[in-house]
Amino acid sequence: MRTIYLDNAATTRVDTDVVKAMSPYFTNNYGNASEPHLWGINANEAIENARGTIARHLNAHPDEIVFTSCATESINLSHKGLIESFNFQPHIITTSIEHKAVIETVKHLKASVTYLSVDRDGLISTKDLMEAITPNTVLVSVMYANNEIGTIEPIKEIGDILRKHNENHPDNRIYFHTDATQAIQYLDCDVNYLGVDMLSFTGHKIHAPKGIGALYIRKETPLIRQQDGGGQEFGLRAGTENVPYIVALGKAVSMINKSKGDSITKLRNTLVEYVLDKVPDSRLTGHVGLRVPHIASFTFKNVRGEDVVVALSERGIASASGSACTSGSIESSHVMKAIGAPDDWSAGQLRLSLSKYTTKSDVSNAGKELVSVIEKLRTGMF
Amino acid sequence: MRTIYLDNAATTRVDTDVVKAMSPYFTNNYGNASEPHLWGINANEAIENARGTIARHLNAHPDEIVFTSCATESINLSHKGLIESFNFQPHIITTSIEHKAVIETVKHLKASVTYLSVDRDGLISTKDLMEAITPNTVLVSVMYANNEIGTIEPIKEIGDILRKHNENHPDNRIYFHTDATQAIQYLDCDVNYLGVDMLSFTGHKIHAPKGIGALYIRKETPLIRQQDGGGQEFGLRAGTENVPYIVALGKAVSMINKSKGDSITKLRNTLVEYVLDKVPDSRLTGHVGLRVPHIASFTFKNVRGEDVVVALSERGIASASGSACTSGSIESSHVMKAIGAPDDWSAGQLRLSLSKYTTKSDVSNAGKELVSVIEKLRTGMF
Repeated sequence: MRTIYLDNAATTRVDTDVVKAMSPYFTNNYGNASEPHLWGINANEAIENARGTIARHLNAHPDEIVFTSCATESINLSHKGLIESFNFQPHIITTSIEHKAVIETVKHLKASVTYLSVDRDGLISTKDLMEAITPNTVLVSVMYANNEIGTIEPIKEIGDILRKHNENHPDNRIYFHTDATQAIQYLDCDVNYLGVDMLSFTGHKIHAPKGIGALYIRKETPLIRQQDGGGQEFGLRAGTENVPYIVALGKAVSMINKSKGDSITKLRNTLVEYVLDKVPDSRLTGHVGLRVPHIASFTFKNVRGEDVVVALSERGIASASGSACTSGSIESSHVMKAIGAPDDWSAGQLRLSLSKYTTKSDVSNAGKELVSVIEKLRTGMF
Repeated sequence: MRTIYLDNAATTRVDTDVVKAMSPYFTNNYGNASEPHLWGINANEAIENARGTIARHLNAHPDEIVFTSCATESINLSHKGLIESFNFQPHIITTSIEHKAVIETVKHLKASVTYLSVDRDGLISTKDLMEAITPNTVLVSVMYANNEIGTIEPIKEIGDILRKHNENHPDNRIYFHTDATQAIQYLDCDVNYLGVDMLSFTGHKIHAPKGIGALYIRKETPLIRQQDGGGQEFGLRAGTENVPYIVALGKAVSMINKSKGDSITKLRNTLVEYVLDKVPDSRLTGHVGLRVPHIASFTFKNVRGEDVVVALSERGIASASGSACTSGSIESSHVMKAIGAPDDWSAGQLRLSLSKYTTKSDVSNAGKELVSVIEKLRTGMF
């Protein structure tokens, strides 16, 4: 069976060039980067090359990049690390549609939290954000692009607002974090252009393996490390460095080609138009224009998204109903609730997410199968 | 130049069979294990197979095994997770020769700590341990084998003592953790035989890659997760699972062959005897008999260990001066201090650590080079 993988917002296939780049670090250059012998020096050089590549991509300094095991760890480090550095109860502003890594981390912090609501397209209002700022606000955390509906938040606009705020209130410095997990493959992640102080991302959404992430931390951002032990990663993340995956992440970042986004956007638009045209009672979720190229997201009335995922899987097609972390739960996702999707629609949530490997025929075949599957589910033929 | 790698206590070469086992999970079975489609189901099966293999090896239940990114993370999770579950200030008993992952983690906990001293061989006294127990003691953390000197601590004896204590004091349950990082390749890690409640280890010391670890947690051990986000790993470790490395860890554990330790012990003894015989003012550190097979550890008078490491590296030989994490520091390691090594000896610390790949000629060539290097360093010929 020819399979069609349309779950690239959950995880991606590792690029064979990435595999090639990291392979020598398993069986040849396998040294521990902390050691002063040749093996260690080689490992360390490989790490610093990758760090340099990533720093250049973000327009940052190499010593502002810390390698972690995933975006979730990056977010735990940034949020807990920052908040624990204050000796008063600080205030955080975030959104109601963040990934669970932010939502669950923030929930356990000794901080008060404002969750910005979003409109029907999933966009926050910068006016709301400005109004939410208090003298105790130390952190604003807004995702760059939402993983369920693909909406791109106004990160640069927020960055400009906070830069101005910080100039006018030097005693009330607010740090700005963005979760760029779904954005880094396609959107501008120049941290100075955006005005962010911390930026998280992970390898496995950009054709590197699962198990490697990074955190950009602007110099002089206070941060208390969360994983204690040795002095690796500038003392900010103890544990022997995962040299092969660090090399892989550097390679994957070096291969980011934003122009690829245009062709993926075209394929996605074809898919979206086809589905909205052929499936009765179907809606696009997320913003029509302000969305990352790879995410096509829908709700269908009177059908369960999970059932669609399973039926498509039986036909060799990978899709998702909501974020990977909320799958399996019958309850509507927090994102569906936040955009105000009615209950009889939100249960029928479906995400098809593309990559550079997705072809025209993948999209047209998946579209046809989806139409057939929903029709059969609705008429009780499964 | 033919190279000789004798730094296997720092990290090991990944076994080609391990590489083979994990490779399909980069470019073929690359699904996210949280997803209910075929790709996700395949990923999940691979994870559960590895978990089962490791559980069987430890004589544990699969749901008592949590995958982490390294032993350091396992130790952070076990120690912080346990201590945070108590609503009083608890007491911890550990040793003065633990790895930094334990020492630094314990230092930051809201707990009082007793550090057991060790004798000249690096052995703790179980009598000291029993005397250190207070009504607030909740955790005893003793490493199975020391990473710098190779001494094996009396884990089963401690386990028996604590089992008896817990039977007699049901209201003062003490949990027992062991860092088995240097032990798991060679020693019995049956958690019920040993009587441990938590056991940490990492892949990269047993021919799996750097960047994957595991924590055994006995059922009903209270534990608060440290990395917040999704519900992965029974809710104890958020973050997309590193499927390839989990498969690799399972494969590496399945390949553990304790009988291999006998031949490695023989090679190591040959090396130790040769060095002690040929190098004037040389001493073995650690216990003569109670030591893991792979670690030969010395101090040399009037020579700096770091200089020996660099000089050996120039001759194509990998060695270490103290643990990977303390290398680069001129100060004697905490382990050298704990065993009472005099200052003029402890600076000349050197560890040569073997693996299943080490050959007779590796050992004899390394021995000869070491003798020559130390002679030249002492006579100022470098």
